[in-house]
Amino acid sequence: MIIVMQANVQAEQIAAVISKVESMGCETHLSSGESRTIIGVIGDSQPGPAEQFEMMPGVEKVLHVLHRFKLSSRDMHPTDTVVTVGGTHIGAGEPVIIAGPCSVESRSQLIETAHAVQEAGASILRGGAFKPRTSPYSFQGLGQAGLELLAEAGEATGLPIVTEALAPDQVPIVTEYADMIQVGARNMQNFPLLRAAGQSGFPVLLKRGMMSTYEEWLMAADYILSQNNPQVVLCERGIRGFETSTRFSTDINAVPAIQEMSHLPILIDPSHSTGKWQYVHAVARAGIAAGADGLIVEVHPKPEEALSDGAQSLKPEQFARLVQQVKALAGKTTLSEMGVL
Amino acid sequence: MIIVMQANVQAEQIAAVISKVESMGCETHLSSGESRTIIGVIGDSQPGPAEQFEMMPGVEKVLHVLHRFKLSSRDMHPTDTVVTVGGTHIGAGEPVIIAGPCSVESRSQLIETAHAVQEAGASILRGGAFKPRTSPYSFQGLGQAGLELLAEAGEATGLPIVTEALAPDQVPIVTEYADMIQVGARNMQNFPLLRAAGQSGFPVLLKRGMMSTYEEWLMAADYILSQNNPQVVLCERGIRGFETSTRFSTDINAVPAIQEMSHLPILIDPSHSTGKWQYVHAVARAGIAAGADGLIVEVHPKPEEALSDGAQSLKPEQFARLVQQVKALAGKTTLSEMGVL
Amino acid sequence: MIIVMQANVQAEQIAAVISKVESMGCETHLSSGESRTIIGVIGDSQPGPAEQFEMMPGVEKVLHVLHRFKLSSRDMHPTDTVVTVGGTHIGAGEPVIIAGPCSVESRSQLIETAHAVQEAGASILRGGAFKPRTSPYSFQGLGQAGLELLAEAGEATGLPIVTEALAPDQVPIVTEYADMIQVGARNMQNFPLLRAAGQSGFPVLLKRGMMSTYEEWLMAADYILSQNNPQVVLCERGIRGFETSTRFSTDINAVPAIQEMSHLPILIDPSHSTGKWQYVHAVARAGIAAGADGLIVEVHPKPEEALSDGAQSLKPEQFARLVQQVKALAGKTTLSEMGVL
Amino acid sequence: MIIVMQANVQAEQIAAVISKVESMGCETHLSSGESRTIIGVIGDSQPGPAEQFEMMPGVEKVLHVLHRFKLSSRDMHPTDTVVTVGGTHIGAGEPVIIAGPCSVESRSQLIETAHAVQEAGASILRGGAFKPRTSPYSFQGLGQAGLELLAEAGEATGLPIVTEALAPDQVPIVTEYADMIQVGARNMQNFPLLRAAGQSGFPVLLKRGMMSTYEEWLMAADYILSQNNPQVVLCERGIRGFETSTRFSTDINAVPAIQEMSHLPILIDPSHSTGKWQYVHAVARAGIAAGADGLIVEVHPKPEEALSDGAQSLKPEQFARLVQQVKALAGKTTLSEMGVL
Repeated sequence: MIIVMQANVQAEQIAAVISKVESMGCETHLSSGESRTIIGVIGDSQPGPAEQFEMMPGVEKVLHVLHRFKLSSRDMHPTDTVVTVGGTHIGAGEPVIIAGPCSVESRSQLIETAHAVQEAGASILRGGAFKPRTSPYSFQGLGQAGLELLAEAGEATGLPIVTEALAPDQVPIVTEYADMIQVGARNMQNFPLLRAAGQSGFPVLLKRGMMSTYEEWLMAADYILSQNNPQVVLCERGIRGFETSTRFSTDINAVPAIQEMSHLPILIDPSHSTGKWQYVHAVARAGIAAGADGLIVEVHPKPEEALSDGAQSLKPEQFARLVQQVKALAGKTTLSEMGVL
Repeated sequence: MIIVMQANVQAEQIAAVISKVESMGCETHLSSGESRTIIGVIGDSQPGPAEQFEMMPGVEKVLHVLHRFKLSSRDMHPTDTVVTVGGTHIGAGEPVIIAGPCSVESRSQLIETAHAVQEAGASILRGGAFKPRTSPYSFQGLGQAGLELLAEAGEATGLPIVTEALAPDQVPIVTEYADMIQVGARNMQNFPLLRAAGQSGFPVLLKRGMMSTYEEWLMAADYILSQNNPQVVLCERGIRGFETSTRFSTDINAVPAIQEMSHLPILIDPSHSTGKWQYVHAVARAGIAAGADGLIVEVHPKPEEALSDGAQSLKPEQFARLVQQVKALAGKTTLSEMGVL
Repeated sequence: MIIVMQANVQAEQIAAVISKVESMGCETHLSSGESRTIIGVIGDSQPGPAEQFEMMPGVEKVLHVLHRFKLSSRDMHPTDTVVTVGGTHIGAGEPVIIAGPCSVESRSQLIETAHAVQEAGASILRGGAFKPRTSPYSFQGLGQAGLELLAEAGEATGLPIVTEALAPDQVPIVTEYADMIQVGARNMQNFPLLRAAGQSGFPVLLKRGMMSTYEEWLMAADYILSQNNPQVVLCERGIRGFETSTRFSTDINAVPAIQEMSHLPILIDPSHSTGKWQYVHAVARAGIAAGADGLIVEVHPKPEEALSDGAQSLKPEQFARLVQQVKALAGKTTLSEMGVL
Repeated sequence: MIIVMQANVQAEQIAAVISKVESMGCETHLSSGESRTIIGVIGDSQPGPAEQFEMMPGVEKVLHVLHRFKLSSRDMHPTDTVVTVGGTHIGAGEPVIIAGPCSVESRSQLIETAHAVQEAGASILRGGAFKPRTSPYSFQGLGQAGLELLAEAGEATGLPIVTEALAPDQVPIVTEYADMIQVGARNMQNFPLLRAAGQSGFPVLLKRGMMSTYEEWLMAADYILSQNNPQVVLCERGIRGFETSTRFSTDINAVPAIQEMSHLPILIDPSHSTGKWQYVHAVARAGIAAGADGLIVEVHPKPEEALSDGAQSLKPEQFARLVQQVKALAGKTTLSEMGVL
């Protein structure tokens, strides 16, 4: 942490800052330049809040030298983490494709989709039982009945299951039926949920909040990791901005940036990040070419009858084409191969 | 809902859309222009998902005629709602000021602040016991011990209490000690929490998500209202954008826009929406002059020692000046007086 | 400037950075902490590009101690600047109201509006002759004929004139007819135009780009000021974000933030920043209450026939009410009075 | 255009809207639903401003059926446009790579870079002579001397040249030396410049504004196309948002979205859209895999000495690797092959 003092700072204001730093068990390093005095804080790996210094008389601003996330940082863990879900390894080099319907709607819809995505090459089945819907008037998911159908589809196909929990008290039932817990974009900063997911010991798919920075995202991962649960997979699912032609904007920079900052695997969700099935193939290819560890894609046998996210769902035959395109791209494009990492 | 067909639409595609609309119990109204055929849907006050139509062959896009929120809409409830917390009426004409520390830190800190804000003119005491902190390494709040201190401070001063719940299972204990439940910005779309807050029957302070549109915010309010709990107060607390000099950007448009769209009261939170105590007075005055129903302001006896949000907290004497400024402005500036509403 | 080295930095990488800093005539200040080595650069008031350091092996990032704007900074010029347009002083304590139609459309439209706004209390007349229209199919302004009408309206009413120039070669003709040059939001970073406006010696109204930070805005002001033209007035006109119910979002924080950072006067444009006439009064009042030096407001005798911006234009009688509301607020609310500055 | 009337609309308000529509030579189509009356406007391919209707009493909002761009739309021109620069065809199937330094700094720097990028596989040379710099204190480009060096480098290597013009009066001199005019992101809505570039008859590289929607971007293209200049190439160069770890956010959705809406070729600029050389390869690959028609990449022989954009420039050997990666990806991934277009 570096504390920049105001242009007209007084000696006793500097002394007060130094005294406060030292009272926290840290050392200071004073540097007086032409236009500003700056105070370096040494040993603040566990600092008190930076804001306490911003408030002090004579302080102009506080600059952060270190990232504020720790356990998810490459500093702490230089090698790539591999997360295992059922028999599938995420982050091990081969792109992993998770697919399935937005919502579990019925037995036949789910079983049909599960078989279709498995045959096409998906490794994990997704499907929502508890649905976070913007409108209270929209379909809210089948709840436990949906979880039971997911488990049945998993058994029928051998695919591991990922599904979303919306609240801490849904974590036990989700882990009874599924192999991986999804924390959705709207819950990226639902801290009790993050803690509960961490404590479960199950792998967690942590989606980026639609307006969250990389640093906030990795601090959210730290909530899970700090419960001694190392199995976190990140997922870029589109950020919110000013563009209205697409549902969200796919921030493809997230792939190399997260790979530089963190050891955790990262997926792309081209269904949510575009909101239009017509754009899903292009963005899926982009994600894999950028070096993502995999994809999560919405597939529905009859998107025009889907109870949620129909506009962004692929039909099974469209999904099969996507898998072929991804396979054609994969393997040539990792960052390590380029000597960047 | 209006369905716009593509330029090169075929007759059977139009027929399929009409057939689907009618299968939902709605009527259609066909209009063929020079460049597009459009299909109006009549009677869709409870429509199936618009996305189902976006997926159909030949459909270009779907336009919404009506807002997607209902219970919070002025259409449904033309007169202003007044929410009563303890003996304080929010939305009744007189601006209401809620004040207190970001976090409850200790008995002496809270009791001192509570007396100070009461003497200065605050009507409701705020303070966080369960804290949603971006970093897992930051102070997470005192939990139940904090609630007990809030209740004690409420009794000592006669001020009603508002405090945040982070999860549905915290609602019962929060309502045991407090008079109003706060749903924070990060939880605006925590739907299980919204439902639990609604079911409690207690007044709810619903902060706008930092990335949420007015429409999404009012749909979140609908989650509460649809539990037969009419006591919702909205609060603009700053939106996230590209500006880095301030913590958030205060979208002052929210005051007249929400007053036009909704009957619910709206507050401004100038502490979070600026992130700097130096800007709090100016933005507080702006909110009241725009016609907001009140303010929620962070106050701390020693901001430089606060465990959270010190940089945006006012000292008691600064808060007292803010109350004086607000009182000087109030009363002259309501929208009704201007004939706008 | 502070250069933060990577965790695993090598001694020769540190030496290379120090050598490069010294080759630029600056001194260094080395500090080795537990987890990072940082190099302070002293004397970099005219530095080479910080990016040159970001590229060097072993460098993690570069932090800026000083703002990158200079002439517009309060550091350089602690007292408020007052800009004089005709006989009107902007920034002298009394809020100044600029009003008039978006576009000059006809002699009768302009003269009627000019008299109406003058009678209501406006001090400067605005009107566009060269119009920056998003669509090439929209009305593009009357050009020189519009300027002639503006000059005529100015003479008829005694009001000074502000109008927009879109290109450096329009500056001479604009200053032939008008008293102040407007640089619009879309041209905030049109650097040849900024230079030409600066060289004209005329007062310049510099609107904030719809996605520009305060720092970029003040650097744009520096382009003008560095031509020895101290007469710059800033104007917040709404920023672009994710909200679609309003045309832009009024960032009211800009008022106190700019007043802290800069000595230049700042206006609010509630017409563009909301895009809806229904919200103009509320946001105008908010701007004045926050401490802005004035307003710029669109007024049209028949908004429903306006060739541009009709939806956000006030009728003359609505504008008269706005002036009354502003006068009721003004004078009580300056920051200086509060002891904040 | 569809005009939605308010819930409580009166018959004479509807009549007034219909009368105004008809006075513009269009027909109306009235539809009265349960909760709203809507008026369809038929024949409005050249409408008056929609805002005129938004202002009328009883009108709630105006919905647009058609895009507001025309000449750049696929509706008007269903087949892909190919733009030819020197002997290079952009949009013809083979990805085109434009490369060179951000700024022309010296003869040796430019000639060395030009040969290096040509040998590596670039088809067009870029380099800035007139530079739009955020700070007036930064290097502003060599101006005409830079253009002369570009022409010399073009002759030495046989590469066509693209370089930026900042103002209409720079277009003639730019086209004297270069083969293609660049309109930069900050000038995307510099309408006099767009018109001048259009009138020149030269190919134009139109970068997306950092805050511009696809629709605004295509309307900017229409400014050029409407001067009877069909040679426009679009370029996504990153949008501005809330993320601070990267300079901009690469909106990869732009590739499929623009290809659906428009017939114009689209490039990706991974240098500006990330701001960090470490991320350039990944985003370049993503762009090509998504189906972009090519790339524009910054290359500098010694990025750590670059006068601008050093942090995002590749060294020649890094660029050579990028070209190899792109060639490995290309050809397999076009949208047409997928049956999406």
